[in-house]
Formats: sequence, C-alpha cells, structure tokens
Amino acid sequence: MNSESAKSIKLGICGFGTVGGGSFALLQTNGDEILRRLGCSIEVCRIASRSLNPANLSTEARISADPFDVVNAPEVEIVIETMGGFDPTFEVVRQALANGKHVVTANKALIAERGNELFPVAEENSVNLAYESSVAGGIPIIKALREGLAANRIDWLAGIINGTGNFILTEMADKQRQFEDVLVEAQELGYAEADPTFDVEGIDAAHKLTIMASIAFGIPLQFNKTYTEGISQITPEDIGFAKQLGYRIKHLGIARCTDKGVQMRVHPTLISRKRLLARVDGVGNAILVHGNAVGSTLYNGPGAGAAATASAVIADVIDIARQTLAGVRKPLQPALGYLAMHDGLEVLNIEDIETEYYLRIPVNDVVGVMAKISSILQDCDISIEAVIQKELNTKTVPIVILTHRAVEKKLDTAIAAIEALDDVSGAVMRIRVESFDDE
Amino acid sequence: MNSESAKSIKLGICGFGTVGGGSFALLQTNGDEILRRLGCSIEVCRIASRSLNPANLSTEARISADPFDVVNAPEVEIVIETMGGFDPTFEVVRQALANGKHVVTANKALIAERGNELFPVAEENSVNLAYESSVAGGIPIIKALREGLAANRIDWLAGIINGTGNFILTEMADKQRQFEDVLVEAQELGYAEADPTFDVEGIDAAHKLTIMASIAFGIPLQFNKTYTEGISQITPEDIGFAKQLGYRIKHLGIARCTDKGVQMRVHPTLISRKRLLARVDGVGNAILVHGNAVGSTLYNGPGAGAAATASAVIADVIDIARQTLAGVRKPLQPALGYLAMHDGLEVLNIEDIETEYYLRIPVNDVVGVMAKISSILQDCDISIEAVIQKELNTKTVPIVILTHRAVEKKLDTAIAAIEALDDVSGAVMRIRVESFDDE
Repeated sequence: MNSESAKSIKLGICGFGTVGGGSFALLQTNGDEILRRLGCSIEVCRIASRSLNPANLSTEARISADPFDVVNAPEVEIVIETMGGFDPTFEVVRQALANGKHVVTANKALIAERGNELFPVAEENSVNLAYESSVAGGIPIIKALREGLAANRIDWLAGIINGTGNFILTEMADKQRQFEDVLVEAQELGYAEADPTFDVEGIDAAHKLTIMASIAFGIPLQFNKTYTEGISQITPEDIGFAKQLGYRIKHLGIARCTDKGVQMRVHPTLISRKRLLARVDGVGNAILVHGNAVGSTLYNGPGAGAAATASAVIADVIDIARQTLAGVRKPLQPALGYLAMHDGLEVLNIEDIETEYYLRIPVNDVVGVMAKISSILQDCDISIEAVIQKELNTKTVPIVILTHRAVEKKLDTAIAAIEALDDVSGAVMRIRVESFDDE
Repeated sequence: MNSESAKSIKLGICGFGTVGGGSFALLQTNGDEILRRLGCSIEVCRIASRSLNPANLSTEARISADPFDVVNAPEVEIVIETMGGFDPTFEVVRQALANGKHVVTANKALIAERGNELFPVAEENSVNLAYESSVAGGIPIIKALREGLAANRIDWLAGIINGTGNFILTEMADKQRQFEDVLVEAQELGYAEADPTFDVEGIDAAHKLTIMASIAFGIPLQFNKTYTEGISQITPEDIGFAKQLGYRIKHLGIARCTDKGVQMRVHPTLISRKRLLARVDGVGNAILVHGNAVGSTLYNGPGAGAAATASAVIADVIDIARQTLAGVRKPLQPALGYLAMHDGLEVLNIEDIETEYYLRIPVNDVVGVMAKISSILQDCDISIEAVIQKELNTKTVPIVILTHRAVEKKLDTAIAAIEALDDVSGAVMRIRVESFDDE
C-alpha cells in the first residue's frame, strides 16, 4: 500500500434500484480487490432512495429520500446517478456538477437527449461526467472508442445494443416463433418491460447509438436525428428467407461517416451469417467498430443486469479516483472524446442513405408480375442481386428480392410503384442489408 | 482549439520497421484527427534506424543509426520502441526511462521476460512504460483489463492470441489440410516467419498470456512458469473427431485464478462450436475475459499488421500526451494494474491443473481393448463423457474419448498405462478441453 491508502474516496449514490444497489453491492464484494488496484478505498457516505430501509443495509452511509441531500453534501466527491429518467434527474446531475462533484451516470436517455446541456456544466466546473455504463452495460465500449481507438478516424460502427430485441430475434430464428409470442415470454422472463416500446421500437438502442456516434465521429449528441425502426414487423418468414440467402436478421444500431454526411440509424438488418456479429445471440450485446488504422474490432458481452452494469459504473468511479489521487481535478479525457468537435458534419436523412435491401413482395401471380417489378426497379436505378420466387399452392405468395446498393429514396419510389401493381396483394416488406465493407 | 494547441508533444522512434514505420505513417495520416481529439499535435523529432534513408521520408526529424541518440535527446518526451528483441533494446528502454522519458513499446518478449526489471525503473523515474500494442495488436485489451474491468476480480481469460497459429488451424479445419502443408502457405503469404517456432510452438502466445495474466490477477510477470505447447502435432483427423463431438480446436492462451493457484498455459484446446471464440477464424485474435461482476466479455480484432499495431502504439502515446497536458508526470495507472500485487499467488505446474480431455488412442483391435482402457481410466479416477469407436477396414484404428474433469497428473498416469497395452499401437494424442464455466 502506498501512503495515500489512508484517504478514502467519498461516494454518494442517488437511486438505489437495480444498478444503484448493484454498484453498492459490488463495492462491498470487490472492495479488497479495488483497494489493491487503486491504493485507496471507496466509501459510500450518502445514499438517496425513496424506498430504502436503512436497517436492511450494512452501511454507515446517511440515507435520505431526497437526492439533493446527496449532491449538496460537502463530503461527497463523486455522485453515482442511477435514478433514471429526466425529472428530477437532470436537475440532480446539473446541481451535482455545479457543486463541483464528479458524476457517474448509467442514464443513456439523459446523456443522449440532454448531454449537450450537461457536459458544458461539467466543463465549467472542471469535473467529470462519466457514462461508460450508459452504453452496452458491462462492455467497456466508451473507453475503447474514446481512448483505445483514439489514433483512428472511425469510419463506422454497428452494434447489437438492445438485449431484449436480440433475445426476441434469436428465439424467433431458432424456433420459428412469432414476434408477439416471444415478446410475452421475454416479459415473463423479466427481459422486457410491461411497456416494451423502448426496447422493441429501438428507442433504447437509439440513445446508445447517439452516444457512440458522438464520440466516434466527434459530433454533438443528436438523438432527434437518429432514425429509428423497431422489430415488431419482422416475421419468421423473413428470417427464413434471409437464412436461405445466407443472412441473419439483427436489430442493429449503425453509425457511419460518409462523404455526404453522418448516418445514424437503428433498424432490423440483414447481415452475413459468416460474421461474428451475426452469431451474437440471446440477451448479449456486441459492437463492431471500424477504424481506418486498426480495421474492425468487436466488443461483446452482457448489455444489462445489475452486476454487469455496476462493473462499468465502478470502473468510471475508479478512473475518477485515480485522477483525484494524482491530484488532477480537470478530466484528462474530453467528455465526448474530442476537444475540437466536427461541428459542421451533417446527419443525413434516412432517404439519403445508400445501402442494399431485402424486399418481400406479396403477389397473386409470381410469373406474371416479376417482369413488371424488374422493370420498376430498373427505372429507379436499382439492380437485383438475388431473387427467391417459388410457385406455392397458396393464393398469395411472396417474391423475395435482394438488391445491390441503392439510394433509399429511389427505393421508396420503387416500392410505391410496386405496391400499386394489380398483382401485388399487400405492403412490401423492406429490410436493409449491411455488408460493412471492411475486408 | 484550446490554449495548449501551440505546444506539441515530442516523440522519438527507435526502430523503423513494420510497426515503427507504421506508427510514423499513422501520425501523418490521422494527424488532424488526433489534433482534434488531443488539442495538441504530436511531433516526431528523432528517429533511430539503421536502414532508413532520410531522403525517402517527408520529415524534419533527425535520423540516426543509434537508438541511444534518441533516448538521450533532451527534447524527446516519449520514446516509441519498435526495435524488437532484447539486445540492445533492454538497455535502450532502461536508459530512456532513467532519462525520465515515457516509453511506449510493442515488444511483448521484452515486457513478458524483463518487465519485472523495467517497471521499477519507470516507477523510480515517475514515467510510463506503456505496452498496449504488445498484446493482440490493435485490440485495446490491456486497457480493458486494467481500466475497463477494474471493478472486477478477474476469474479467468482465454484468448486466440497468435494469428499465424489460428490461420493454420482454420485452414486445416476448413479444407482438411495437413499442418505442414498449411505452414508452407502461411510462410508464402507472409503470415509465418521462415523459422515459425515462435508462432506455432506457442512462445509468442505465452509472452502475451504472461502479460495479460499479470494485470488480470495482480501477479508479477512469470513467463518461465507459463506452460507452452504448440499446434504442430494436431492432425486433420483430430479436428474431424472434435467436430463430431461438437467442438473446434483452437490454440488458446488460458489464465485462471483458482483456489489452488494460478494457471497459465498455452496449448491446443477443444472449445464448444457454439461459443463465439470458436468462430474466430483466420489471422484474427480474440480474448474472452471473465470477471466476477461483469461476467464474460469478448474482444476481437486484428492481432498483427503495421496499421493495427500502430493504432495501439499511438493510443498509448495519446494517453501519455493527455496526462502530460494535464500537468501530471506520474502515471495514473499502476503499470501492471495493481498498486498492491498478490505476491503470494503461486503458479501451478501443468500436472496440477484440472480440466477435461480429448484422447485419441491408436489401437489394433477396438472391441478387445476398450474394456482395458476403461478400467485404467477408472483406476485413475477419470470418468468418460463420450466415446467414438468405429470398426474400420484399416489395421490401426483410433478410439476417441472425451473425459470429464480430471487432474492432469492422473491423466498422465493413465496415458502411460494405456500406451503400455499390447493392443495400443502408438502414442496417445491428448488435447485439453475448456468449458469456461461462465453460464
């Protein structure tokens, strides 16, 4: 032990649910190991929780119902915010930063939607606002993007960043089950909330993607420009056709820096089954990142859970503690990875992206209508890479088409024209395909 | 840009081969992006190279043949060591540290075998000796272990950490080719050296494993206690039998902290084909790490190559530059992750490890000998999980056995007894199996 071991770092925890309680428990379980690494112990001296009964907790921390008691306590050096939501959380975090306390948060919505307001407060007060646990749970992806890959220009990243959605798609693929059916099971298992919108419609993933895109490309947080599409329309039929074509369907968050602008989009995506990312099943998360020097690196692990998320929360605390012990107050790392952001980089509308597409077109007569569909696609400058067309003994059968790269708005035009054909019997299912261009 | 942008960080590069040259090139290619992140430019002011012709290089750096010119130059703040080997490299690095310069090295042999001598010199002089690029090329695994997972007690890690070996095993598996045959191709492709010993016999992997085990468990570097076994004995037949049993054969470096002591071992290993690690093919690297809080996380990417390795070298440089710009001289992170090492943790001999085993036993008469083999295993407390025994129309046929967990020395005894049987016609092939216990 060095001479600093007499000091302890004073922590306050606001919100004592799954992640807050998990972080407290982790400090107890691994306290000795953390002391060995850090040369200093971490002491929880304040907790704010509305439901906590102090008698149930082995701690000398002062417990109150009001989070402002924690952020205004003079002895607290680092505040862990695990309350979630915006109100009163935004003000709790703002006040903590204004009081000169470092803040560690697991709140992806807060960072993605209001980080642009909070980071300047942190900067003015020379304190850290750390958020490793807000993206992909226990996977240290923020550290990888901001520090480990700092010598790279990041070209793109693509991630499975919602465990609930990936669990549902995995079950649908493995057992040919319907979306609604698996969703109910996910809710029973506790993987999905009673209101599953945040997970299955991609909002949770869009929060995480917004944060990763910002530090990858050095752009401001722009959650409202992130295109979001959920997985509730995916059918076992689509998963089966994708498989025939050599693909799996994953709900991906994709950020890409192109000559025309930045793409930020969350949607179901066909990816080659040969890719490691396609093999990430169940509730796991994984992020594939392409840097212009390193090439592609992949980070995989648990994206949720009390202990896994606490692992990332306490890693942030340890980083800040090491900085504090070195006598440094101002964060060494710019909060979003860049000191000079690329403010001029525009985020593209989804109509302006260019990618490949999977189309499933319900038709009454396969043979008759194929020529018309081909002609429409050709008129829109869209070329066909593969087709599945089978005469089945049912009245309505699908034609499945895989296109080469095309601009989305041309595809929109083509789909509208295809849906207007007499022999097309319903809406066209369109799923984007991602080839990644890293080899 | 902030006010510090006028300053530049002064760099010296010792050794201008693949990685040294690649690091120089990367600073040129991504100089603007690095300036945006760091708020300060990085200037190469000295280069030591025996072969370099200054006229061929667009730089104002002073070039000399003697690396001591670089480490003794007063203006140099950070030395990149990419000379390789021990002599004169050890002395070059020692001198640089003694001169108060930070050192960034890609030299895994130097760190693994002589790090215990060099880190104290770094500490005495309050400078960094950084080595991210020494393990798994561009994958930021040192940062993940030392910082990202710092809140965990690391239970074990297992990695594909030699791209050459993994390329050879992948080719053997995909195309049923012989080891020697693929090795020649790997040499032609430049993946393997003319003397492939370092790669295929596991010495290179053992260097990397030694380093990872040290920072994972907080133990001194102990390369000479790392058990090392190569892949040259693996046959397409073994790969085929493993496949039948649901496994793939990978050359893994495994470190595990058990009640009895620390395991550090590099050897061919059967792993379930369902695991992501089993799907890492070709020259890629991947490390699976299990922490007691986070569970299992996996890090995958290119383990070699000029640009990928340079990505890690320059990431270390950026970390040190950020520290320097913050006015901190002493490293924030303990070099090997712990301030108080677990000095008492003993490394186990390979005879004392416990795992599962694959055995291929060449026999003259399958039916007659199986009972005797079963009896020997039973006497040694080894139970059988699965058996493949087929009567073939050849004189010598193999019996393949998968065992449950057993202590290695008991297996050694059993193998000696089995090889002594009359109907056993040759040496028993033994490959360890790894189940990972993380689910």
